[in-house]
Amino acid sequence: MRVEIVAVGTELLLGQIPDTNSQWLGEQLAAHGIASHFHQHVGDNHQRIVLAFRTALARSDAVIVCGGLGPTQDDITRAALAEVMNVGLERREEIVEKIRTMFVARGRSMPDNNLLQADVPVGATVISQVRGTAPGLICPVGQKVVYAVPGVPYEMTEMFERAILPDLVQRQRAAGESSVIKSRVLRTWGASESALAEALGERFDALIDDDRVTIAFLASGIEGIKVRLTARGRDGEHAASLLAQEEQLARGLISEKLGDIIFGVDDETMEDAIAVRLVERGATLGVAESITGGLIASRLVNISGASKWFRGGVVSYASEVKYELLGVARGPVVSAEAAEAMAVGVRAVLGSDIGLSVTGVAGPEEQDGLPVGTVFVGIAVGEQVEHVALRLPGDRPRIRAYSAISALDALRRLLDR
Amino acid sequence: MRVEIVAVGTELLLGQIPDTNSQWLGEQLAAHGIASHFHQHVGDNHQRIVLAFRTALARSDAVIVCGGLGPTQDDITRAALAEVMNVGLERREEIVEKIRTMFVARGRSMPDNNLLQADVPVGATVISQVRGTAPGLICPVGQKVVYAVPGVPYEMTEMFERAILPDLVQRQRAAGESSVIKSRVLRTWGASESALAEALGERFDALIDDDRVTIAFLASGIEGIKVRLTARGRDGEHAASLLAQEEQLARGLISEKLGDIIFGVDDETMEDAIAVRLVERGATLGVAESITGGLIASRLVNISGASKWFRGGVVSYASEVKYELLGVARGPVVSAEAAEAMAVGVRAVLGSDIGLSVTGVAGPEEQDGLPVGTVFVGIAVGEQVEHVALRLPGDRPRIRAYSAISALDALRRLLDR
Repeated sequence: MRVEIVAVGTELLLGQIPDTNSQWLGEQLAAHGIASHFHQHVGDNHQRIVLAFRTALARSDAVIVCGGLGPTQDDITRAALAEVMNVGLERREEIVEKIRTMFVARGRSMPDNNLLQADVPVGATVISQVRGTAPGLICPVGQKVVYAVPGVPYEMTEMFERAILPDLVQRQRAAGESSVIKSRVLRTWGASESALAEALGERFDALIDDDRVTIAFLASGIEGIKVRLTARGRDGEHAASLLAQEEQLARGLISEKLGDIIFGVDDETMEDAIAVRLVERGATLGVAESITGGLIASRLVNISGASKWFRGGVVSYASEVKYELLGVARGPVVSAEAAEAMAVGVRAVLGSDIGLSVTGVAGPEEQDGLPVGTVFVGIAVGEQVEHVALRLPGDRPRIRAYSAISALDALRRLLDR
Repeated sequence: MRVEIVAVGTELLLGQIPDTNSQWLGEQLAAHGIASHFHQHVGDNHQRIVLAFRTALARSDAVIVCGGLGPTQDDITRAALAEVMNVGLERREEIVEKIRTMFVARGRSMPDNNLLQADVPVGATVISQVRGTAPGLICPVGQKVVYAVPGVPYEMTEMFERAILPDLVQRQRAAGESSVIKSRVLRTWGASESALAEALGERFDALIDDDRVTIAFLASGIEGIKVRLTARGRDGEHAASLLAQEEQLARGLISEKLGDIIFGVDDETMEDAIAVRLVERGATLGVAESITGGLIASRLVNISGASKWFRGGVVSYASEVKYELLGVARGPVVSAEAAEAMAVGVRAVLGSDIGLSVTGVAGPEEQDGLPVGTVFVGIAVGEQVEHVALRLPGDRPRIRAYSAISALDALRRLLDR
């Protein structure tokens, strides 16, 4: 059972809006163990919509179409569906009545173009509209099926859950294919994708002919590499057990070859990892930022409840601010000594238990003879004052973003010692 | 000349990451007058990638493929391209050397699987890698062409602008389709899309039957509404003159109906607008951030040369930091008085000419009886101390981001008085 998603709308091709519908539907299908091998975007053009539907029906068993069901001239999904089904359109009086009633309830009269939404391909089943005016459609095409839903996410999601998902699950069961998919993402920081691939090499080799478990990497920009483990089982319990087994193996190999680089799972961020550890210790944090210019603080306050452990920060961009407010000794401000002094200084200024600092060269030019990408992180905890020296790649915004997550990771590792 | 975009990656089908690449590419192609009728997503599976490529080549003249060029086992775009081209892969030594050099520069040795990235379909042209390790490819298929670029947006955008766009423009010219498109984006902050549509209503009406000039709106999340003006001319001069004329009309209508809401054009950001004004005045700035937690400072230091006018900031997240470091009177910390005191206080602490501050309720709960979204901006310039009261919509991260750009906009307007 393979489901293809076709999102209709010229605005998607022009990049004017993001296609959040395909992403949401993809996630839902995966969570229910339904395979989806292709997505398409197509504009508001009859011939091309028909071609996209035929392409989808040729390579998939079911198609979910989002968009083009509204009341305006560029809403032409209904006519394209009728052509693919090789039938005509008929106006359904019960839909007309329902739309008219909705307008009356809002104290307005119904513009005539709304009648278009009551035109249904002969032989199609209507998914009644609950949240909007356009009904959805279930259109049989031979042994296959096309589901059409409005492009408005709020209406689409409701129809998917109420009418499409149950129908798909039933079809899958009828085809004797019911399985459940579970997945887990391991979040890592500090290793390259190729180093991770090498560390997990034996698992990749072992899984080549295994159609139940897969490992994949997702590079997520500055947020490190994600390792995605996916398991397909007979039922939820079976999938969970396969997944747990694979996670244990993967964690073992990664930790053995690359050390403590996993900072969280699934949607957990580096700042979540910091928050958990600080709450556990009952300790408060203050940050002194030069190269990162407030990025670290702005990540930390994203955590709901940050006020319990986050005191605040000083963005000491000008050297004078480092000397006068943070008590850094006059001299070069990108050095291990300056980073440590900033960490100690900000702790005193903000009255926090822990001080974390970053100073470095973001470019475009080198500074005091130090190349672009040179970064020092300082951490002051109790009597302990430490620093980490880094050499980071990329342009100015990238070096700054890497510096922020590197500093948080350094603090995470120190708190775990 | 029709270009199809194929985004490769199982993570896209599973909805684990949004497909920002297709959206960005769609926007770029449209801006340059190049038609795109279809997009596809396909997973990391050889047969299915080949099928997606063949489908795209059957209905489009050129294909841009994003993703699957990395060093790991699931990066299989190269092999699929070779199959579609009906050729083998050859290892290019110059690519091997370049990757090896990158690893050496970072003081690391190159894992062997990186060599895969040097495998190139016979007959393909390499797009050299500037920002990452995987090169791009230009693959002729009969009279058509497939461009392959890495899925990392930062690498993809650079290769598109440097190598793909010029090649597409040349092909379009060779096909005798050359007209020149020029576009300009007016960046606005503070008006809704429907208010802008109403302000520009007479231009929309006048342009209905004009195939040379178009106006479109791009909602760009927290960065305001972009008004994109596009003009198609016989040559560069003609297009530029049409565009200048339309820009003058649009600016006139917007300023007349909605006031001074245009803060920049094209890629100019709100912080660019601030930087220009501060450099002009020879004044320095310090910021005090509570609700924004460092976001404003981190936006400002993104500007190259910020050290000339940016002293730094204080992230006064805990109330104690507001009282003790910034001299805010003890009491509620979300108020016009607190915002003004923060602006005055941070100017003294950091020794800047101007102080800018933000305090507010980000939620999820209300604070001191003030509803979520209540925000006060304070500005201290010379003897002048002012505040702006705002009520912002959205969830926690959205309110914080809106607060940051709103504060910068308030400063921009004050500096323009």
